[in-house]
Amino acid sequence: MTNERAAAPAPGRRRQRGRRRLSVDERREELIAAALGLFSTRPPDEVSIDDVAAAAGASRALVYHYFGGKQELYVAALRSAAAQLTDLLEPPAEGRPVERLRVSLSRYFDFVESHASGYGALLRGGPADRTGEVGEIVNGIRNLLLDRILLALDAPEPGPVLRVTLRSWMACVETAAMDWLEHRDMDRKELERLLVDQIVVLLRTAGRHDARIAELFDRLTEEELS
Amino acid sequence: MTNERAAAPAPGRRRQRGRRRLSVDERREELIAAALGLFSTRPPDEVSIDDVAAAAGASRALVYHYFGGKQELYVAALRSAAAQLTDLLEPPAEGRPVERLRVSLSRYFDFVESHASGYGALLRGGPADRTGEVGEIVNGIRNLLLDRILLALDAPEPGPVLRVTLRSWMACVETAAMDWLEHRDMDRKELERLLVDQIVVLLRTAGRHDARIAELFDRLTEEELS
Repeated sequence: MTNERAAAPAPGRRRQRGRRRLSVDERREELIAAALGLFSTRPPDEVSIDDVAAAAGASRALVYHYFGGKQELYVAALRSAAAQLTDLLEPPAEGRPVERLRVSLSRYFDFVESHASGYGALLRGGPADRTGEVGEIVNGIRNLLLDRILLALDAPEPGPVLRVTLRSWMACVETAAMDWLEHRDMDRKELERLLVDQIVVLLRTAGRHDARIAELFDRLTEEELS
Repeated sequence: MTNERAAAPAPGRRRQRGRRRLSVDERREELIAAALGLFSTRPPDEVSIDDVAAAAGASRALVYHYFGGKQELYVAALRSAAAQLTDLLEPPAEGRPVERLRVSLSRYFDFVESHASGYGALLRGGPADRTGEVGEIVNGIRNLLLDRILLALDAPEPGPVLRVTLRSWMACVETAAMDWLEHRDMDRKELERLLVDQIVVLLRTAGRHDARIAELFDRLTEEELS
């Protein structure tokens, strides 16, 4: 853990902070926002409590007072990111199915891009044991997105083929996002188009394995062309 | 960690073991095999050093002598499982492309089924920090499989679209395997057929984004029909 930033604690921000009276909740939110900013852009191992304190113009003692330690702070930042993503992916009210999907996918990649380092570290499996709280947050988001897609497809109780197909496609999206962060050798919009094409053909293929999905696919195609 | 099994240490096996003289390597392999058996069928949290000792008919002290602790033993068991999977997925020498893929996928699911608990726990992200040794083993396997698929496709230097497509499909396979272990509500062979159909349509879709992949797809189709 580096704490070089602690030596240069943004004196302007600290002065400004002194003028304001923050409630406990506001102060907590501010520390979380500072932590999320750092966890989004650097590997978690390279973010220290001192860094977060410096970025928020607060003392190290105050950060410990609110969060107890880095793991709690990381989990709090992750919950905050999960809430952001949940808001971002509110289904668009307007548009045909594929257009709505395009919008949501683009917002997802906005999120990935602005939290690049944190997203990468999280999905690579670090820094925490993902079977614990961190795993619950990640799975919570995945399940929420799956439910939203099912709702958008008007298929709230999917059979196994549809469930596997949608989960697989969500894994395609995560994998593509990770690959893009790693290589950055493909235009982001082009990658998003590839992923939209993928879900279309994956649903059509699923329709060959389950007649109800074939009906669903026909209904979506009609809606698309109407 | 439970150590109830330590109370019933398979006296028959222990007696048998006493009659044999094992080399250091053989003894080590035997402990790893016992550990892998346990890690494959129970969540890692529920496997103790005592359990491994009992299963191998060895003393707790001997296990510590060879491995130092549970994490080292887990990593050794994982390496052994990775080596098994690597052997299992040696590309079949015979058959058309789709048939070879079917054989490999079926062998992959044999592996998943026989290591169900360990596979599930590993891909859910536990028990260890996957950015360390465990992550290297998992990524090593993924990279090896990707290279083998690229070799089978005669496309050793893929562009970004092919790379993303194949990585995405590998994520589909892992996701489908996890889903199957969790729900078991789909016939395994049917799921394998769905995954084969998926890679075919994903490659065709990729061909719409990259002309070289379209050529590759046509070549494979010809080979398939020849």
